[in-house]
Amino acid sequence: MKLPNAVKIVEVGPRDGLQNEKAVVATDTKVELIARLADAGLKAIEATSFVSPKWVPQMADAAFVMARIERRAGVAYPVLTPNLKGFEAALAAGADEVAVFGAASESFSQKNINCSIAESLARFEPVMDAAKAAGVKVRGYVSCVLDCPYEGEIRPEAVALVAGTLFEMGCHEVSLGDTIGTGTPARTQRMLEATMRRVPVERLAGHYHDTYGMAIANIYASLELGLAVFDASVAGLGGCPYAKGASGNVATEDVVWLLNGLGIDSGVNLDRLVDTGAWISSLLGREPASRVSRALRAGCAAG
Amino acid sequence: MKLPNAVKIVEVGPRDGLQNEKAVVATDTKVELIARLADAGLKAIEATSFVSPKWVPQMADAAFVMARIERRAGVAYPVLTPNLKGFEAALAAGADEVAVFGAASESFSQKNINCSIAESLARFEPVMDAAKAAGVKVRGYVSCVLDCPYEGEIRPEAVALVAGTLFEMGCHEVSLGDTIGTGTPARTQRMLEATMRRVPVERLAGHYHDTYGMAIANIYASLELGLAVFDASVAGLGGCPYAKGASGNVATEDVVWLLNGLGIDSGVNLDRLVDTGAWISSLLGREPASRVSRALRAGCAAG
Repeated sequence: MKLPNAVKIVEVGPRDGLQNEKAVVATDTKVELIARLADAGLKAIEATSFVSPKWVPQMADAAFVMARIERRAGVAYPVLTPNLKGFEAALAAGADEVAVFGAASESFSQKNINCSIAESLARFEPVMDAAKAAGVKVRGYVSCVLDCPYEGEIRPEAVALVAGTLFEMGCHEVSLGDTIGTGTPARTQRMLEATMRRVPVERLAGHYHDTYGMAIANIYASLELGLAVFDASVAGLGGCPYAKGASGNVATEDVVWLLNGLGIDSGVNLDRLVDTGAWISSLLGREPASRVSRALRAGCAAG
Repeated sequence: MKLPNAVKIVEVGPRDGLQNEKAVVATDTKVELIARLADAGLKAIEATSFVSPKWVPQMADAAFVMARIERRAGVAYPVLTPNLKGFEAALAAGADEVAVFGAASESFSQKNINCSIAESLARFEPVMDAAKAAGVKVRGYVSCVLDCPYEGEIRPEAVALVAGTLFEMGCHEVSLGDTIGTGTPARTQRMLEATMRRVPVERLAGHYHDTYGMAIANIYASLELGLAVFDASVAGLGGCPYAKGASGNVATEDVVWLLNGLGIDSGVNLDRLVDTGAWISSLLGREPASRVSRALRAGCAAG
């Protein structure tokens, strides 16, 4: 059981994070957040979402964010594009990587995006075609890979089927989301083992929520199986993990602490990251939802 | 790699927890807390500490607590006894299990108990002898098993030496403390592997602090090596994990969630435990430092 030597963190704070915060953050602040995250060494920063501003007012400035961010060499700035209209807007705004969003749970798919899993995959087809034509990479998200708030436990084979289909459709990476954060390590490993039969492990990412405090253990269990890409949100942006609902992205700070302790290279400077998390949290009027951030800033002994 | 089928949780909230809270809790409240924890199914509840009230005013009522608690069949109520004087007081108060407290770090031993590791072990000798004569079981604690706030990283062999000595002196169980909570899973496993060469795994316990959010991952990594006893504190009593210093016992609620998810029996009723943690936390005027407690009480989807 050899852990990976290096891990890529996909920082989702500016999109998945801020989208789930009550406050609508100024475009300039978003642009500064993205720059600071790149300064901290993150190589993939989900920048925004090209969705209807009627549904997601926090992302109404998507094109403006893309117009303003300073692109760094070696840093990817993927954006969420649920459909062809969103994709075309993203392309016009200069996006060079996009993401589509499906679910492993039929009930969640119906309630969240108003169609069956099969219908959602069909909707992605034109996005995949257009992306291929434009030379734009597509990331696939699968939500509810362990439990669904409506139908409970999700079978590993159901996850493998959706993830495998997204991969076959051309997604360069498939991110597996424990959307409600209820998962534990052994079930995470069973889900991954089933999915790895359909998708090479180097094309999979773990997207674990920390609502029940299990995300770091689930990441460790995933590293044991060779997973080497993890989504995380600086300061746990995306809702305080104690709030109601499917909130609680694992904090990037906590993931970096884990990786540093395991001797796994992430390329991230923890001090800069903690500063960035504290800065954006203070603008949102709350404490970072990261134990590492709180401990380091409180001056706890760091050993 | 087979995880244990069952795990014993040693609930340390009433002692290690309340001892590190600023507020001095009423004897009646301590007695009720211990009764509620037994009602929730905990089979080992560290009840109090027979130490100088000058140093630890929170535990000045140790004899009164022991006189008042209702002993349940099958439940152990160990108490901390740093020296022979404490042991004799504990014995007079009816304790049938005690604990002694050492460190794997020379600097920590000097600063915390004012003597070298070797001297501390010598001081335990009369306690061990008296306990043996009285038919009282002794638990051994080793602090700083991964990092020390004064000297940094601690070698696994140093932990193995102290733990092995305590075991040879007659301790029925040796609890290994990541006192400042900085540890990560791979180092936890290396420390355990070294220690298991000196002490049978069934005589070892993990005592991990969650100050940096790593405790659940460290428990999972320990379960992988067959460890089946873990110390935890209801509601994370013993200081908010965000406070300064070596605070942050892992919350018993979070440990039970992990074990339930892994299909490992702990005998603990999570709902009762969450209620007990919320009750004692409200008396202390704060939120439980347990993500599981917060998520469940906020009505987050439990899958």
